[in-house]
Amino acid sequence: MAVSKKNPAKDTYGRNYLTNIAYDSVVFGFSGDKLKILLMEYHNTGLFALPGGFVQRTEHLNDAVRRGLKERTGLDNIYLEQCYVFGNTDRFKPAVMKQILKANGYEVSNDHWLLDRFITVAYYALINYAHVVPTPDALSDSCTWYDLDNLPGLIFDHKEIVEKALQTLRNNLDQQLVGMNLMPAKFTMKALQTVYEAILGTPIRRTTFQRKMLGLGILKRHGKHFSGSANKAPYLYSFKK
Amino acid sequence: MAVSKKNPAKDTYGRNYLTNIAYDSVVFGFSGDKLKILLMEYHNTGLFALPGGFVQRTEHLNDAVRRGLKERTGLDNIYLEQCYVFGNTDRFKPAVMKQILKANGYEVSNDHWLLDRFITVAYYALINYAHVVPTPDALSDSCTWYDLDNLPGLIFDHKEIVEKALQTLRNNLDQQLVGMNLMPAKFTMKALQTVYEAILGTPIRRTTFQRKMLGLGILKRHGKHFSGSANKAPYLYSFKK
Repeated sequence: MAVSKKNPAKDTYGRNYLTNIAYDSVVFGFSGDKLKILLMEYHNTGLFALPGGFVQRTEHLNDAVRRGLKERTGLDNIYLEQCYVFGNTDRFKPAVMKQILKANGYEVSNDHWLLDRFITVAYYALINYAHVVPTPDALSDSCTWYDLDNLPGLIFDHKEIVEKALQTLRNNLDQQLVGMNLMPAKFTMKALQTVYEAILGTPIRRTTFQRKMLGLGILKRHGKHFSGSANKAPYLYSFKK
Repeated sequence: MAVSKKNPAKDTYGRNYLTNIAYDSVVFGFSGDKLKILLMEYHNTGLFALPGGFVQRTEHLNDAVRRGLKERTGLDNIYLEQCYVFGNTDRFKPAVMKQILKANGYEVSNDHWLLDRFITVAYYALINYAHVVPTPDALSDSCTWYDLDNLPGLIFDHKEIVEKALQTLRNNLDQQLVGMNLMPAKFTMKALQTVYEAILGTPIRRTTFQRKMLGLGILKRHGKHFSGSANKAPYLYSFKK
């Protein structure tokens, strides 16, 4: 798939893009103690939004989303899941889009395809916070990590999208953590518990957590992790393939 | 929400509809021993498809899908879940759509919005087979139940959509059966097991099934079901609200 950079704002009638359909990504990262997501801030507007985009006529939907994420994070092979399609009429707010375009120097006519109603496919991704250098896109002046428990106000229904993505992530955590990029190749049970607690937003008893994780049969145990004091060196684990 | 009947085929430029976006529904019903789905057959084409449709500019996506299902099944309050968005470029086959429209007496120009590429949001529903009188839509001459294990060939990627819906249904069965319309208000454990076996496509040991279902804590036990011979009268159950 060629990574094309056709500018949606200059494409008045959406000749290069599917119209009425967009995507938005909730990109979760784990800093070691906090769950964070990537947000964009649009130039000169004070408006914050999820990183999203549009589908070129010649590309698959899922490829469009991967392209957008690669452009903003530099990462390939991201664990990416569809989450929900948001298609209510009240997310149609052409004035907001017009404001964003104007602040970027695009004066568009009222029949511009970007001012039309959009249904958006929400995706969520988990990426290794340490490996990511967020990159703003053409319309935004920043793309930065924000603590999930301290987000700025978001445009459209993006707050609702974040909540749905978080709920989906929580529901699927046991099955999906294996394929995600949140953990290093080997990790201690305590590090894994910290991730679970950050995502679930609640503390878990150590013994309960350990029993549950071992019961799932998804962990492989390796040697002990010696960090100086030989006492209480914890085991290292990895996810079974 | 008004149930409007704007004819998509006569709306050359999609003025009343969102373009490039459609929905398809996998409607499961249980006949007592077999899992079935609803399929439409298009007039004079031999083409079979999932019941689907388009989103009017003034309606929510989820409402559009409920409207379509009501028009085809007469049922309201259907348990309806989003399943997956199919957005590959290879589902773009304008010649097939042109053939369907032509067989219905619509000669459309090549820039008609129905001949454009569509991304489709797949939904699945479970409805009470006994309550449903399938109704064909304007373009199709039948809307009928088919055994899931004996489907005709389907257009576009509809076979793939059915498989994805079935997989989603199987994955969510324990959580979702409660809200579905497959069972009467009260039922025996044996009747419930029959549904599970039909959906999962595999026999289950009676004792294993009973232990699992009771362990889920979603069933309420009522009196025994006397059907003549007093011996071995089974208990009746209902789902807890």
